[in-house]
Amino acid sequence: MPYFDAASAAPLHPVARQALLASLDEGWADPARLYREGRRARLLLDAAREAAAEAVGCRADELVFTPSGTRAVHAGVSGALAGRRRAGNRLVVSAVEHSSVLHAAEVHAAAGGTVAEVPVDRSGAVDAGTFAAALGEGTALACLQSANHEVGTAQPVAEVAEACRGVGVPLLVDAAQSLGWGPVEGGWSLLAASAHKWGGPAGVGLLAVRKGVRFAPQGPSDERESGRAPGFENLPAIVAAAASLRAVRAEAEAEGARLRELVDRIRARVPELVPDVEVVGDPVRRLPHLVTFSCLYVDGETLLHELDREGFSVSSGSSCTSSTLTPSHVLRAMGVLSEGNVRVSLPAGTSAEDVDRFLDVLPGVVAGVRERLGVPGAAASATGSGAVAGSGAVAGSGAVAASGAVAEDVPAGDALVVDALGRRCPIPVIELAKVIGDVPVGGTVRVLADDEAARLDIPAWCEMRGQEYLGEEPSARGGVAYLVRRTA
Amino acid sequence: MPYFDAASAAPLHPVARQALLASLDEGWADPARLYREGRRARLLLDAAREAAAEAVGCRADELVFTPSGTRAVHAGVSGALAGRRRAGNRLVVSAVEHSSVLHAAEVHAAAGGTVAEVPVDRSGAVDAGTFAAALGEGTALACLQSANHEVGTAQPVAEVAEACRGVGVPLLVDAAQSLGWGPVEGGWSLLAASAHKWGGPAGVGLLAVRKGVRFAPQGPSDERESGRAPGFENLPAIVAAAASLRAVRAEAEAEGARLRELVDRIRARVPELVPDVEVVGDPVRRLPHLVTFSCLYVDGETLLHELDREGFSVSSGSSCTSSTLTPSHVLRAMGVLSEGNVRVSLPAGTSAEDVDRFLDVLPGVVAGVRERLGVPGAAASATGSGAVAGSGAVAGSGAVAASGAVAEDVPAGDALVVDALGRRCPIPVIELAKVIGDVPVGGTVRVLADDEAARLDIPAWCEMRGQEYLGEEPSARGGVAYLVRRTA
Repeated sequence: MPYFDAASAAPLHPVARQALLASLDEGWADPARLYREGRRARLLLDAAREAAAEAVGCRADELVFTPSGTRAVHAGVSGALAGRRRAGNRLVVSAVEHSSVLHAAEVHAAAGGTVAEVPVDRSGAVDAGTFAAALGEGTALACLQSANHEVGTAQPVAEVAEACRGVGVPLLVDAAQSLGWGPVEGGWSLLAASAHKWGGPAGVGLLAVRKGVRFAPQGPSDERESGRAPGFENLPAIVAAAASLRAVRAEAEAEGARLRELVDRIRARVPELVPDVEVVGDPVRRLPHLVTFSCLYVDGETLLHELDREGFSVSSGSSCTSSTLTPSHVLRAMGVLSEGNVRVSLPAGTSAEDVDRFLDVLPGVVAGVRERLGVPGAAASATGSGAVAGSGAVAGSGAVAASGAVAEDVPAGDALVVDALGRRCPIPVIELAKVIGDVPVGGTVRVLADDEAARLDIPAWCEMRGQEYLGEEPSARGGVAYLVRRTA
Repeated sequence: MPYFDAASAAPLHPVARQALLASLDEGWADPARLYREGRRARLLLDAAREAAAEAVGCRADELVFTPSGTRAVHAGVSGALAGRRRAGNRLVVSAVEHSSVLHAAEVHAAAGGTVAEVPVDRSGAVDAGTFAAALGEGTALACLQSANHEVGTAQPVAEVAEACRGVGVPLLVDAAQSLGWGPVEGGWSLLAASAHKWGGPAGVGLLAVRKGVRFAPQGPSDERESGRAPGFENLPAIVAAAASLRAVRAEAEAEGARLRELVDRIRARVPELVPDVEVVGDPVRRLPHLVTFSCLYVDGETLLHELDREGFSVSSGSSCTSSTLTPSHVLRAMGVLSEGNVRVSLPAGTSAEDVDRFLDVLPGVVAGVRERLGVPGAAASATGSGAVAGSGAVAGSGAVAASGAVAEDVPAGDALVVDALGRRCPIPVIELAKVIGDVPVGGTVRVLADDEAARLDIPAWCEMRGQEYLGEEPSARGGVAYLVRRTA
């Protein structure tokens, strides 16, 4: 049963398992105690710290273990901001950081701090020059991931670190997705990572703070982990984390090259096999094991469910798969389609056969979902016949359609109105696709929608289908009216 | 090799080990994901929460897992204080809470909040009436441990909870030391605990917040654990924690009774076997497995070291065993001797033979430490001959003693001055004991000392030896002058 969601959590590496078992017996005591069980625990902790620091590329006394990557980020951001309070209260982050960084930024903003988000291009990458330009007066800290967790795009960390160094701003790198593949290059100041992303156990994060970086840990602290991570050390898991990091690094070059080829195969084959698909993220500057694509006219939750039935575990940034019913902030920042989104992240050891089987299964699964959603000519082009069975599409002047939609009382001229109010992703886009053929070239369609995903997916659809997106405006009937001009 | 420091960390319970191993294979995936590995992880997490909640005596949706007991306390205190901000900013804690509570209180005070410490009696217990009286206007939260971690004394939690309820103040109970022995009685509002104290793995704490308690989690949060404990769940450890809590509870009555007898044996025999010892903590209302005593004229660090050489792992609240060189705040709050302090906390399964061997070994170890410290007539009374070899004791008028002490330029009258400036615990008390016989009954000794432990240990010595402690005053030569009148 192929598990293709390593970016969420990788299965435990055999070395992690062995080290965990061994240190359950040797490493349960308090490393702060001076008796033999404590000294033994201290030796294990020190050795784990040395090994992890070597893999990170820092000194052992610069690295502490935290209960998770999320907590490493939270502690790193708050400690660095507080340590640099005199420099200012501006925090600069990329728009596609992991939610742990963005949540820390929200707390900073709520406490009166300033947060500047650096945008990304359609591949998900920041531009180093744009990032540098955002390091304005009073910048206390900048945060940039090494590579994106949803689309795999690598960020120009070394260039950004150099720009930060030039203006004396510390750079925190969230290396959660990349640390198992190699150290983060360049002159970063703080680094956070998470063991269960590289095959280590849950319950262990890393926070490295370079000597000389002003750092004031926030919240209650104790004497453990240099005062930067309070609470009894999770020692067996820490030992397992360090041992498995060393092990995956030894395998990283060969396994990375192998997985990179498998991902290239997915990147190339999916658009050939499935119509109306957008493969996102940088095709070259990327994590070796991760690829993301979005399928037009597909409900992400159903797609995941169907893939799960076929034995494939993947994740999605579609709005219908999030508890907040908003699309992934990463896809939104990139301006790419969010509906029918699938992230495939291959764990080490994934076989070519499993990838091929995924490619065999995917087209039928997508077609099935489209068919059930009533997408006209599911596997072919979705524009055309103007079939509106069950849809909210109505002609411009006021006819009531089958779904109960009412024409909007605006001077719509020749605009065709599609009422998708109360309908969730991907319905608004499907309805748009159904009617676009009904207006003449040069004519416009107004799509009324209150689903958050429509704001991202209607422009993305226009881009994919070569239609012109004219913008949005408030709708008198609630929600938003998205204006599309037929150009093709 | 008997390990007698279960109150720091208990060795892993066999059930915890089994559960951890089983869930390494079943519980590594993200329980928030909808694919099969995620659903399986979710089932494990839900079952662990049910089991832990049943043991705590709360609803499953009132309980979250945190990365440690310390983090449970920190999150509980900050969340409850913030949730009750409108009620006021007063926090009431006992003076003998675990450092995690006191550190959270320090952060509250540093942010402008008020902290009231409720004193304890010589047994280490708060008086429920005194605690109730401290719940003044604007009290947002009260904290009381179920039982003390250093001396084992049980607190009147049910009475205090009732008093709190009467005035509408939530009570947070730190149950870290007692939860393995049984649920906390009474109407508490919040409860924190730590798995590695009951034989569960490190890396798991519990925080229960009763429905209806106003609670506003502080710091960055995510969707995990009801927004109260951010970061990827440490699932295998959580499963092991819950399974072992259930297992130790099944054994608690019988094992508690057995260990209670072994502790009673230690409490009775130590004062018979070792002269000048004070056994502290409540002899009856106490944890079953824990006993603490202090030995006059003994250096705690050396004592621990010698016991470790004999194969016994114990801990100590003596100043010389802490990195801050201050005595345990618990012993200080109780007003009992801190030098030569030994805490014995028996893990489940401790044999009577190991306890008897400890009692065999202890007298010789204490005598040896005293002898090396030059305590006159080590195993007998320490008062008497006035031998001052190597000491800083000088007659009142200015003679320079062997240790380089200089008489203080005060109108000392008939006071004998002992200069112990720069000398660490237990030297000031040893020097006092050496010279007390040199002054006539009714005469006074001034002990000059700058070691923090002297403030606790000189009055405690007076109490133990039937001498009169007159108080302290600043010394013109630095440090503090402690005044003792010979009455016996």
